[in-house]
Amino acid sequence: MKIDHLISQIKQKNSFLCIGLDTDLDKIPKHLLKEEDPIFSFNKAIIDATHQFCVAYKPNIAFYEAYGLNGWKSLERTMKYLNAEYPEVFTIADAKRGDIGNTSTRYAKAFFETLNFDSITIAPYMGRDSVEPFLEFENKHTILLALTSNQGAFDFQTKNVGEHELYKEVLEVSKTYKNSENLMYVVGATKASYLKQIRHIIPENFLLVPGVGAQGGSLQDVCAYGMTKDVGLLVNSSRGIIYASQGEDFAMAANNKARGLQQVMEIELRKRN
Amino acid sequence: MKIDHLISQIKQKNSFLCIGLDTDLDKIPKHLLKEEDPIFSFNKAIIDATHQFCVAYKPNIAFYEAYGLNGWKSLERTMKYLNAEYPEVFTIADAKRGDIGNTSTRYAKAFFETLNFDSITIAPYMGRDSVEPFLEFENKHTILLALTSNQGAFDFQTKNVGEHELYKEVLEVSKTYKNSENLMYVVGATKASYLKQIRHIIPENFLLVPGVGAQGGSLQDVCAYGMTKDVGLLVNSSRGIIYASQGEDFAMAANNKARGLQQVMEIELRKRN
Repeated sequence: MKIDHLISQIKQKNSFLCIGLDTDLDKIPKHLLKEEDPIFSFNKAIIDATHQFCVAYKPNIAFYEAYGLNGWKSLERTMKYLNAEYPEVFTIADAKRGDIGNTSTRYAKAFFETLNFDSITIAPYMGRDSVEPFLEFENKHTILLALTSNQGAFDFQTKNVGEHELYKEVLEVSKTYKNSENLMYVVGATKASYLKQIRHIIPENFLLVPGVGAQGGSLQDVCAYGMTKDVGLLVNSSRGIIYASQGEDFAMAANNKARGLQQVMEIELRKRN
Repeated sequence: MKIDHLISQIKQKNSFLCIGLDTDLDKIPKHLLKEEDPIFSFNKAIIDATHQFCVAYKPNIAFYEAYGLNGWKSLERTMKYLNAEYPEVFTIADAKRGDIGNTSTRYAKAFFETLNFDSITIAPYMGRDSVEPFLEFENKHTILLALTSNQGAFDFQTKNVGEHELYKEVLEVSKTYKNSENLMYVVGATKASYLKQIRHIIPENFLLVPGVGAQGGSLQDVCAYGMTKDVGLLVNSSRGIIYASQGEDFAMAANNKARGLQQVMEIELRKRN
């Protein structure tokens, strides 16, 4: 997907909500377990009930891999359904991959071609030749981990490398990568106070922001410090939406939660336009 | 697998060779493409022809994911075959995963339980709570990226964090993780000169060493600076062995290459015992 299509979808829906599909057989409504493919049935119902309020879906690949072959099948079906029914929606493979040259190219093919995702999350530790193979794909986007929402972010990401923290070094160095215009970055909502400095380094790139809701990040702070003229934000919520109810009304409950977040986002968008 | 079993296997076979199964339909012998599952057929033939000279196999997960469902099936069949026929051999999922808490637990289940790998490679960028979920699994091993063999390693890994390089900070900090006795580390053979200092920080842990052969690392240097009293090394070769021939004699050619590396390893082991 071209970045312009994502931006126009955001403006049309007045939303920059991304919904995380962390689909877990232990958490989905019990009545779905009788279905032939409970994971896909759950995802389909969630997607049908929420697509009008969000601009992106983010399957968390670990949840599918944990079920082996069956999980992989459910992921393929989910992506085929999204591509066929809601091609306007941006898709993110939350895979956090990262490997050298020809191996990265394989991962890129797996997610960009075989599964037809618009984007993938990537870890930066291995450097340039682990990231550039992803950046070569036209109209595909590589979302580099910068400053994550978890406690472990303080182990390495915020430590000083020379004059600034490692995550800033990741931002600075990655700007020099070939096709860096295809980069987006993960910045946790729990680190909203860092966003001002981050926007000095990358004033335009889209940020994928997890950690609003369950992890305690503030949507208002994220907008105050992170929003650009083209919005430049995709704020993710997973469990807060998809597990809003574990009863038969789960899709309606997800619809309500997604609408609620969209409405807050609309207010934030109107404040700034 | 208990680490003692790995060590006794190394001593019995006089080998610390790991063979990387980077199986690529564009590179395997053409006559195998007629088979029902060419990737598995290739892996089976390579394993049958080389197992007496190596102590570990390392499927590179990207290569399987690139083929979608079929690739995942071939990986499952390969692991079932290894576990049934050669249970003494150590298995490494070269997956380079890394995510927060409950997602890491999912990846751990996918590789340690669903696929029954003995170990997995993990990226350290997200810190403690992205690594500890893997370390909880008894007799399973987590191989943390420390200093990789690629050029991109110089982007971040070798930059100074405080008084020493980032990869040394990764080694030091990871030693404080819960169940850190289950840690191994990736150190590229192209960085053999760094091994002496690495052994000051982690004198005992096993190292997975890629980059001998195609990438130009020296096996002798790796042994000189990295070997411990329990050997403490798994030296990987992938393409140099599995693609030694692309003709019908590919398994015999792989056997010859693996035997050649085992013989050099035996010399290195005798020098030090």
